[in-house]
Amino acid sequence: MRISDLGEFELIKRFRKKIRLNSSVVEGSGDDCAVLKFNKDSYQLFTCDMIVEGVDFYKTDNFSLVGGKALAISISDIAACGGVPKHAVVALGLPKNMQVNQVDLLAKGLFEMAKRFDINIVGGDISASHKLVIDVSVLGEVGKNELCLRRGAKTGDIIMVTGEFGGSIKGKHLKFIPRLKEARFLVGNFKINSMIDVSDGLVQDLGHILEQSSAGAVLYESLIPLSKQAKNSQEALCSGEEFELLFTASRDQASKIIKNTKYRFKVIGEIMPASFGLRLINYKNRYARLKLKGYRHF
Amino acid sequence: MRISDLGEFELIKRFRKKIRLNSSVVEGSGDDCAVLKFNKDSYQLFTCDMIVEGVDFYKTDNFSLVGGKALAISISDIAACGGVPKHAVVALGLPKNMQVNQVDLLAKGLFEMAKRFDINIVGGDISASHKLVIDVSVLGEVGKNELCLRRGAKTGDIIMVTGEFGGSIKGKHLKFIPRLKEARFLVGNFKINSMIDVSDGLVQDLGHILEQSSAGAVLYESLIPLSKQAKNSQEALCSGEEFELLFTASRDQASKIIKNTKYRFKVIGEIMPASFGLRLINYKNRYARLKLKGYRHF
Repeated sequence: MRISDLGEFELIKRFRKKIRLNSSVVEGSGDDCAVLKFNKDSYQLFTCDMIVEGVDFYKTDNFSLVGGKALAISISDIAACGGVPKHAVVALGLPKNMQVNQVDLLAKGLFEMAKRFDINIVGGDISASHKLVIDVSVLGEVGKNELCLRRGAKTGDIIMVTGEFGGSIKGKHLKFIPRLKEARFLVGNFKINSMIDVSDGLVQDLGHILEQSSAGAVLYESLIPLSKQAKNSQEALCSGEEFELLFTASRDQASKIIKNTKYRFKVIGEIMPASFGLRLINYKNRYARLKLKGYRHF
Repeated sequence: MRISDLGEFELIKRFRKKIRLNSSVVEGSGDDCAVLKFNKDSYQLFTCDMIVEGVDFYKTDNFSLVGGKALAISISDIAACGGVPKHAVVALGLPKNMQVNQVDLLAKGLFEMAKRFDINIVGGDISASHKLVIDVSVLGEVGKNELCLRRGAKTGDIIMVTGEFGGSIKGKHLKFIPRLKEARFLVGNFKINSMIDVSDGLVQDLGHILEQSSAGAVLYESLIPLSKQAKNSQEALCSGEEFELLFTASRDQASKIIKNTKYRFKVIGEIMPASFGLRLINYKNRYARLKLKGYRHF
């Protein structure tokens, strides 16, 4: 059997089964970041993301944007857990015939992103590779009372998002700014019950929250914020690499969050009991079947 | 200009120039691990290593050994700094047509290595890739008084090694057990002035110690421990991926280290002033020219 027959999520499950963790780990794999014991008030967050030429970006892309993206993806994961990124190590697999000015552009984008978010690039590794591969691992910190996981959604929670969805592939996936400020604002001022960043697609990532919270949800098609690049709301619901935040909070907290004047968050639905499943109410106010297709590598 | 014209070390220098670090970083890139502030008694160590199919291993290799190697390389880096590995994240770039049983073998080797050294695999990332790529990032801890860097070698220090050298490519590079126990024994019982693990080749890695310590050295060809796989001592001096420890300590400490009955360490030379350069005394007791060729990716 080939891994393309098995699928990405089955493959990940297969790995997870073998994992044994000791008590210094608060949360192992399965969320946006691993959560590790750190000190009295804080946890440490640890995450990695690999991007590959021909899959996550192309030779013809602006390599400064590619370098920025490589780090931004992991910053987005740290944000989704409510934390602050601190340190990164960068592993590069470089084709031998790569132009030095392309590497310089890559470094430029990476270091600019690091500077913007006050992240120390503390080490790395360079290897030869057929295609360009970049893997960035980031260490962050989060106050114990600020930590957001996927599994905390409760029936009656309001589902909210940052930004707009759809058509990320047309450019946003290389140019997005991780929603770190928004995440820190949320965890610093409100009680957020669950949070994730939208990397696989809004519906698919909401699915992760629902699965881990043993919950269902209703989404309102008319409430999904569409970007100019969105084909339509179905596409917006499935579009990967949007890197927006998707989070839930109680009705009371949600009304306060919506009233804030600093950042814009939009309501898109509500958490329901698990038995309800995941349903979409369409523009005609009818339940519509949700095509649960988000991004999968295999 | 292509990166193959520039060379691996020039490329790394080019990156390092752009790095700006804040005060939470004790040591940034340039050693086996980054060293980060942690708590009153300890630092945190952070390192990553990427291995690529066709470069660091081949399709025909036993994938269980490949999985073990991917983690062992980083354990060896943590050992070289005197520390203990704690947590790892694993990024995998997998060809879509890869067999599931090959992935299972890879995971088996990785998890067995993790178990052996009590390391938590706390997260990861899976991407599609043309060739198999594995990047492992490891977090470790080291007592402040146990930390070993490359830059601490002093004139008169005795240069010592673990194990034997030569012909690693014939199998050892996939089967080595990182010298963590030996390193912990050394830093727990003696004053080690500098340490590195031999990944690029004995002479080349000694060169890193000398450069960062502003020192020279004399090596005795007759003292280099040769493995059965070694072609000759010249090959042993340049053989990459030996993953043995190379370290220096004062003459007084060295004599105590040699007398210990728990682990075997061998003297191979002595640290000299920088002006002496790096010289080899051959079997005929004459200075021999050192061919400074170790492994380089470009």
